[in-house]
Formats: sequence, C-alpha cells, structure tokens
Amino acid sequence: MPELRKDIVTREWVVLSKERAKRPSDFRKRKPIQPVQQYDINCPFCKGNESLTPPELLAYRERETKPNTPGWRVRVTPNKFAALDIEGELNRKDVDIYDVMNGIGAHEVVIETPDHGKIIPHMEEKEVEEIIWAYCDRYNSLREDPRLKYILVFKNYGEEAGCSLVHPHSQIVATPVIPQKVWWKIKGVEQYKEYRGKCVYCHIAEHEMVTQERTIAENGGFIACAPFASRSPFETWIIPKTHRACFAKMSRFEVAEFARTLKETLLRLYLCLSDPPYNYTLLTATCDSDMLDNFHWHLEIVPRLSTPAGFELGTSIYINTVTPEDAARHLREIEISKVKILV
Amino acid sequence: MPELRKDIVTREWVVLSKERAKRPSDFRKRKPIQPVQQYDINCPFCKGNESLTPPELLAYRERETKPNTPGWRVRVTPNKFAALDIEGELNRKDVDIYDVMNGIGAHEVVIETPDHGKIIPHMEEKEVEEIIWAYCDRYNSLREDPRLKYILVFKNYGEEAGCSLVHPHSQIVATPVIPQKVWWKIKGVEQYKEYRGKCVYCHIAEHEMVTQERTIAENGGFIACAPFASRSPFETWIIPKTHRACFAKMSRFEVAEFARTLKETLLRLYLCLSDPPYNYTLLTATCDSDMLDNFHWHLEIVPRLSTPAGFELGTSIYINTVTPEDAARHLREIEISKVKILV
Repeated sequence: MPELRKDIVTREWVVLSKERAKRPSDFRKRKPIQPVQQYDINCPFCKGNESLTPPELLAYRERETKPNTPGWRVRVTPNKFAALDIEGELNRKDVDIYDVMNGIGAHEVVIETPDHGKIIPHMEEKEVEEIIWAYCDRYNSLREDPRLKYILVFKNYGEEAGCSLVHPHSQIVATPVIPQKVWWKIKGVEQYKEYRGKCVYCHIAEHEMVTQERTIAENGGFIACAPFASRSPFETWIIPKTHRACFAKMSRFEVAEFARTLKETLLRLYLCLSDPPYNYTLLTATCDSDMLDNFHWHLEIVPRLSTPAGFELGTSIYINTVTPEDAARHLREIEISKVKILV
Repeated sequence: MPELRKDIVTREWVVLSKERAKRPSDFRKRKPIQPVQQYDINCPFCKGNESLTPPELLAYRERETKPNTPGWRVRVTPNKFAALDIEGELNRKDVDIYDVMNGIGAHEVVIETPDHGKIIPHMEEKEVEEIIWAYCDRYNSLREDPRLKYILVFKNYGEEAGCSLVHPHSQIVATPVIPQKVWWKIKGVEQYKEYRGKCVYCHIAEHEMVTQERTIAENGGFIACAPFASRSPFETWIIPKTHRACFAKMSRFEVAEFARTLKETLLRLYLCLSDPPYNYTLLTATCDSDMLDNFHWHLEIVPRLSTPAGFELGTSIYINTVTPEDAARHLREIEISKVKILV
C-alpha cells in the first residue's frame, strides 16, 4: 500500500508509491555522459568573453587583472535578461480590486568558473568555496537595500530544470516582497517552536544524525539527507547542524564545510543518476529578520526526474516513486574515491 | 519595467515580464497538428478493449449493452496504476518526529469518449456534458465515503503535462487529508469574506464581467477569463457566476452551460496555440463542507508552455512572459465559427 507522509514544516503531504518503486537506472539518460568543451567562443560566461555580459558586480580575480577582463575565478554580473529591475522607487497600488507593484528587485548571475564545462562535481573544494563566498558577499550587499525583502540564491542545472546556458552558473534574485512560500515556511518554523519548544530543522538534523536512514553525506557542520517527505525522487537537503537564520553569516570554517558537503552531494547525484537535471534553492531568513533566529537556513536540491501534473498542481501533494530511504542508500553507496571525472 | 501582481486569493505574487513579452506563435510547436487515428488496438481506453481496464465503476451506455463491453459513451474505471488504494482502514501514526498515514484513497479514470482521437474541442456539446455528468456522479458517490476528505477532478493533456496515454481521459483522485494548497485557498476565501464582506471569486467574476479586459468566453452562467495574476502564459479560469461551493450540485442547465464554456475555451486554446499541452483542475469545496458556502468552485486551466525553475520552486513566484490581457485578447480574437476540425 502507498504511504502518505507529511512535511512537518510546510504540512504538505506526499504520496510514496512503493508499488511503482523505481531504481536509479530508471532515471538515467540513455546516452553516456559526454565530456564538455572548456571554451565556447559564443558563450557570454567564458573567460575572454567578459564584454558579452553587463559589467561585473563582483569578481574574485588574480592580482593586477582588471575588471571585466580575464583573470577571474568567480564573477557576478547583473542578469542581461533580468526578471526584476534594480532602478526605481517602489510603488504599490490598487488596480480596481487587485494589488500591483512595479517590478523592483535584483537579478544577478554568479558565473561559477571561467571554464565552460567545469561543473561543481569536477571542482576542487577551494573552487566551490569561492562560489559560496560570492553568494555571501552579494547577499550581504543586496540586503543593505531597504527596498528588498527577500533574497534567493538558486541554481538551474540542465534543460529540464529550466537552464538555457550550459556554462556553470547560479542566480540571485531579490524581491520587494516576502514570497508567500517563504512566509509559510517561516510560519511553520514558528509554530513548531511554539508547540515543541525547538527549531524544526534542528530537530530534523538531530534525528537524521541518529537514525542515519536517510543520510547521504555528513561532516562536523552539515548533514545532507533525503527529507522524510521527499516530493521528488532523490530530493536532498543540506542542513547546517548549528542553528542559524541566515547563510551569509557563516564563518570561514563553516563555508569550507558547506562547500565540501555541497560538492560531495552533487557528485553523488551526478554519478548515481548519470548527470541529472536539478534545481537547488538556498532558503534563508528574510532580509528584515536575518539577525534573528526565527529561521534555520538550508539548501534544497530537487532533481528534475518526473513531471508534476494536474494532481500536483491542484493539491501540491506530490507522488514520489522512490522512497527517501532507498534514494539515500543508493546515493551513499556510490564510491566517490575511485572516480575518474570525464573532462 | 516588469510588474508584480498579487493573487488576491492565495496572496502569491507573479512577475509579468513585459520586456520579454511573447506572442502565441512563440509557443506553437513547429509541426502542424496531426489528425489522430480513431482506434488503437493496444489502447486500453478504446472501444472493444474494455477488458484491458479494471471493471467499470460507471458508464453511460446504449440500452441493452452490457457493462465492460462496447456501447458506452463515457466510462469510468479505477486507475490500473492507482496512486492511492481504496481498500483498508485509515491509520495515521507518528514515526519518530514525523507524521505518516497509509495511502487510502481513490484514483479513477474518466474515459471521455470511445474514440481514440476525439478530444474535447472536437466534440459536440452534448458529449462534453456527459463528461461533466460523470465527474458529478463519481464525486457524489465518493463523498459518501467518510474516509475521504477531498476529491480532485483533473486532466493532464499532452506529454509535457504529464500525460502518458493519448486517448482522451481525465482523472479523479480522492485523498484522506485536505491538501495544504486547498486549505490555503479556503483560508484565502474566508479571510477575503471577513475583510471585504463578500466572496472573492464572486468579486472576481463580477469585476471581469464589467471590464471584459481578460474575458475569453462567457455565457449566462459562466465566465472564462485570464486571471489577473496569471502564473503561466494563457492560464484560464472558468468561474460560475452563481456562488456555489461544490461543482457537483450543478443543475442540468448549469452543466450544459459549463460544458459549453469548457468546450469553447479548450477550442480557443487549441486553435490559438496549436494544440498545446495543459492541465486543468476542478477546484471545489472539501467533502465535509461542500453543502456550506465557504468556497466557490471553479476550473483552472494551465497550459504547459514554460518550465518552472529554481526561482519558482524557492518562492512560488512565477515569471510570466504574456500578460493576461494580451493572452485573453489573442484567445478572444480566434474565429471559431469557421473552424474545420482535423479528424
């Protein structure tokens, strides 16, 4: 019989369809992973093509190299096709019975590497750390802007995950409103605290560290695990073991540990599912409250292996054909030490 | 500059990206619409193949034809690959810190026609009416079961919308919990009523009838319109003008008017966007409260023309490249009287 499981933060249910259970090979693409070229003359994110993007907002670069020229390791620019516009004053108004605001906000691209084909699973840990530092630096800069209420760091990887440019990159969007989905999560954290007297994500991390049933990777600071109510096959959360509302307050040591966990987790997914498409989202406190402890930041990785359809749209109950226990076991069992990366 | 608009029921925002505005032709498939065969020997939903499905739960059929044989016009069977199981007792329990329930529920298939290729835009209105009657009859039957708390009728059309069988069909899923997304909508309706003293969907229908800016089709009983805060290009809602919590309480005359609106709306989408993939969901009151007036049933059609990515997953703020005003105008301007359907 299938099983219904509840997300204890959002109260959303999922259906785990055990009869239709699938294995990692059911999700693998037919074709083997292809090595990707290291430079594409038309790619706006490749080194040497800096003039194809708007001027950089941030770059970690070699000494004595100039902005918007080669020499950078990680580079952040405004998104050329920004969904929201950084210039202007906030203006919220009623239009008849409805509620409208002009599209003020920020939309930036974090170019993770100058090399066209070097994805996170191929990187050295130090390189991943610099991506995380770029997230932190841009977050801390954007949160100075009082018009902005929420800042989301996310990554779309692969065409099925809505990614249009192959070159490794992530994005940052800052919105002038607190998104409703974020609001419900914050409310969920607050209500759990009122009821159980502790942070729900602390509780999840502690519990998963004990049972190890759904653990995928772990070190002193972080646990990567399949959430108990996984919405999608191989969904993975990375949760800091220490309670902290905002990711951008991480110490140097924590950034290193987080980068290590992120790299290991993405490498396990890459090997287990043969380079799957995925989205990750870095969920953190609202700008107004990121110094308070009313949230517990974490990163959610959702491989895009199934198509949500009418039932999911109407109910937000997802039907998942892989139990998180099975998914975690498959991901844990991958031998990553012997891996020869195709580059 | 882009515009942020708020859904006044769910409080979710959308971004309307006017600079990146698209036209219907941007969404059309390259290949022209192909006529579909009327019979497929391997299709479990084609007439003559009744033995390939579980025994029927309901069929509208010609006199003196036997169950599970040809002669039916609309036929409902259990889903052979049901997400939830109708047999057994509800059993909810704590598993450590988590909340689990066994997967009791119903999952049925409404086979809309015996003909493999006859989609709703090709049907006579009388044929569409019978589909709606099947929804009503099965809803009223399922709601007698005290284990079931919510019943969703929905349709997945086209591969991109999660549809695996071409033969025209819709689905009914009954769940032993009230889905969280439904709950937030009901709360939204209640809060609007407290605040503004009226039903939010009545207010929307009245407002759209006056402005006509986003109207796509209309008759005495129903209005089809693009919602003010459309999440996806060409999203369309069909709202009954008369306040009623549950769709299955429609009168004979209302069923006819609803069928007419549904057919016309799907025909306009079919012609305007060249047979697009879509999901529709029929949102109605919870089983416990469908005699009360705490909801206003309606049907939401979401064409699947774009891929939600990390930003949408993290925030539930959708970025839409077609304003609902443009979408409605394009759909309204289609001449449907002269249409020669490809069959």
